[in-house]
Amino acid sequence: MKILVLNCGSSSIKYKLFDMTTKEVIAQGGIEKIGLKGSFLKLTLPNGEKKILEKDIPEHTIGVEFILNTLTHPEYGAIKSLDEINAVGHRMVHGGERFSESVLLNKEVLEAFAACNDLAPLHNPANLKGVNAVSAILPDIPQVGVFDTAFHQTMPDYAYMYAIPHELYEKYGVRRYGFHGTSHRYVSKRVCEFLGVNPVGQKIITCHIGNGGSIAAIKDGKCMDTTMGLTPLEGLMMGTRSGDIDAGAVTFIMEKEGLNTTGVSNLLNKKSGVLGISGVSSDMRELLAACAAGNEKAILAEKMYYYRIKKYIGAYAAALGGVDIILFTGGVGENQMECRREVCKDMEFMGIELDNEVNAKVHGEEAIISTPASKVKVVVIPTDEELLIASDTMDILKK
Amino acid sequence: MKILVLNCGSSSIKYKLFDMTTKEVIAQGGIEKIGLKGSFLKLTLPNGEKKILEKDIPEHTIGVEFILNTLTHPEYGAIKSLDEINAVGHRMVHGGERFSESVLLNKEVLEAFAACNDLAPLHNPANLKGVNAVSAILPDIPQVGVFDTAFHQTMPDYAYMYAIPHELYEKYGVRRYGFHGTSHRYVSKRVCEFLGVNPVGQKIITCHIGNGGSIAAIKDGKCMDTTMGLTPLEGLMMGTRSGDIDAGAVTFIMEKEGLNTTGVSNLLNKKSGVLGISGVSSDMRELLAACAAGNEKAILAEKMYYYRIKKYIGAYAAALGGVDIILFTGGVGENQMECRREVCKDMEFMGIELDNEVNAKVHGEEAIISTPASKVKVVVIPTDEELLIASDTMDILKK
Repeated sequence: MKILVLNCGSSSIKYKLFDMTTKEVIAQGGIEKIGLKGSFLKLTLPNGEKKILEKDIPEHTIGVEFILNTLTHPEYGAIKSLDEINAVGHRMVHGGERFSESVLLNKEVLEAFAACNDLAPLHNPANLKGVNAVSAILPDIPQVGVFDTAFHQTMPDYAYMYAIPHELYEKYGVRRYGFHGTSHRYVSKRVCEFLGVNPVGQKIITCHIGNGGSIAAIKDGKCMDTTMGLTPLEGLMMGTRSGDIDAGAVTFIMEKEGLNTTGVSNLLNKKSGVLGISGVSSDMRELLAACAAGNEKAILAEKMYYYRIKKYIGAYAAALGGVDIILFTGGVGENQMECRREVCKDMEFMGIELDNEVNAKVHGEEAIISTPASKVKVVVIPTDEELLIASDTMDILKK
Repeated sequence: MKILVLNCGSSSIKYKLFDMTTKEVIAQGGIEKIGLKGSFLKLTLPNGEKKILEKDIPEHTIGVEFILNTLTHPEYGAIKSLDEINAVGHRMVHGGERFSESVLLNKEVLEAFAACNDLAPLHNPANLKGVNAVSAILPDIPQVGVFDTAFHQTMPDYAYMYAIPHELYEKYGVRRYGFHGTSHRYVSKRVCEFLGVNPVGQKIITCHIGNGGSIAAIKDGKCMDTTMGLTPLEGLMMGTRSGDIDAGAVTFIMEKEGLNTTGVSNLLNKKSGVLGISGVSSDMRELLAACAAGNEKAILAEKMYYYRIKKYIGAYAAALGGVDIILFTGGVGENQMECRREVCKDMEFMGIELDNEVNAKVHGEEAIISTPASKVKVVVIPTDEELLIASDTMDILKK
């Protein structure tokens, strides 16, 4: 069985084709700059080489067609015919309160999803364009939606409600939804397989630390709290996002700088975080280089970045009544040993004891990085959202 | 030595007169509705009875004069002559980065304080009016300013900086300042006396839980982090304040409800929190009554209220690398055993073990409420900001 996974943004489409008998990726790539000058498709050849195919891609249907043609291309293609693709799985961003699990996409489901557009005005319409593009070209292929918010739908009300007038929740659905749910679900399940434990009974804190970052508190396999909120702005300090900030500071800045809601949103989402403090870069690798060179603002940004992760680990341990497993994933979490080291430093009071030698050697691989004596297991698990999307798609197909 | 302590708001002045040889309050009361219809002075007589004196009070100088006349009144007065008052101590709200301790007020200091008006546009000008009113009537009396923000000035930069463009800090001083500093300082010092321990070496989490609420993380007697931010809106859920909320939700609500910065600020400061969720009241006693009657929104508000305190205790334990003392103060913290019980529940993993029987009996008194075996001492200490203001004033006078 072969499953195509698509992640459609407003001007990009990423794809991976899985052979689900082996769970291997047999083709992958992405389209960039849809509707813009210089659009192209970049694919990874079987030998690992990257190839760029330039082409005018005015909209998503032409983009999807280009991907399908590339998949069946006599030279670069991984398959001979589109008939080999059994289904398409989509990463979809905001499922609101409507979707707590992955679903087969049909007219009714798509309408319910479109009703969540308000909550993710940039992402949801782009996701829909991708689904419609596939329908236009392959009208009979089953398509499955896997929602970024779905895993977090088990949060209790006292964790997801904001302390604002209740009618704002009733009227507009203002509440915490959380994102990266597919990643948190994948790694929290995978870590239990890796450690050979039953998810039921485990208290897990999953730290998805990348350019975007979020943490989730998971009990018995279910999400109990997460750092991202109504939007992906809340919580941790990120590459360009502020994360947590006094709402009073938001209005203060708007007044001082003469910004409207779009202006301040832009400031907090695109010019803040690691980039805003350091003035150097939003990329943690470049930040660490600047730190090594003695750049004081970069050093401040690095400290802030780790400090906020550490505080959330404490907060979620309190929320769960303790913690059995702390897990790092995402670009930074998987690869940056400094982040894991600083976050876990001086946390012995809650049973965390990192093995600094082991930690220093782990890059992007599954590994236990706590000492054998550590009460809390600290683990690195590379995330694989696309594999989970493909698995969900296959499971729904089999039903 | 007698010290008069004043807390001047925009339409109110609270006062307490201390005899510092015994540290007793020998007179206290407050003026309400300055500049409004129906202004009055309410004082507590030595026998505990309250007395209301109605009078037209158009502005602060007349208010201060009225207080001084009442203090020396032949019938209600606690002193015979104003000469008996050695100094006046003022509660002052926002000292910005300029004031890390209490100071004798002079022209230069008042100018520096006025320069912080921007950060507390409602409170600072009212505080200044109080100082000027005293100067007008008693030009030679020493006056001391005790700042709500001062105690928090020891926070490290990685705790007080927001992850926004660095120039917003440079241009406008946008950062975490924290409030209730006088209370956090008083109780964190007092608890060490009470327990007979040296503040140096202690990791203390002080929970000031009242209609407003904030938590501070204190190490070696110094504040390392606190929940309130640039403004007193951030952090815990409060009587009418939202506390923490996704900045993305702030702009979302502004757009949906057509609110400007004043409108959303009003919503988040005055119509949110316990009142906003429960729809019942901002007062925790009334909330608990509604919970007992089975009101579901009240029950939700109660759970949210406790949950956020619990999360911050975990976060600050992580920030401090452990915790030795957790302290409850403020109207709710001192008197509401339910709050302390729920916050400390299931926190054994970090060494907290509440003695539920003892806890149930403690109302507004100094007491240890953890079990003898508890690694973390949990303590109730009633706060006394006015006494600390009087003590600071006396100390500065003696210099």
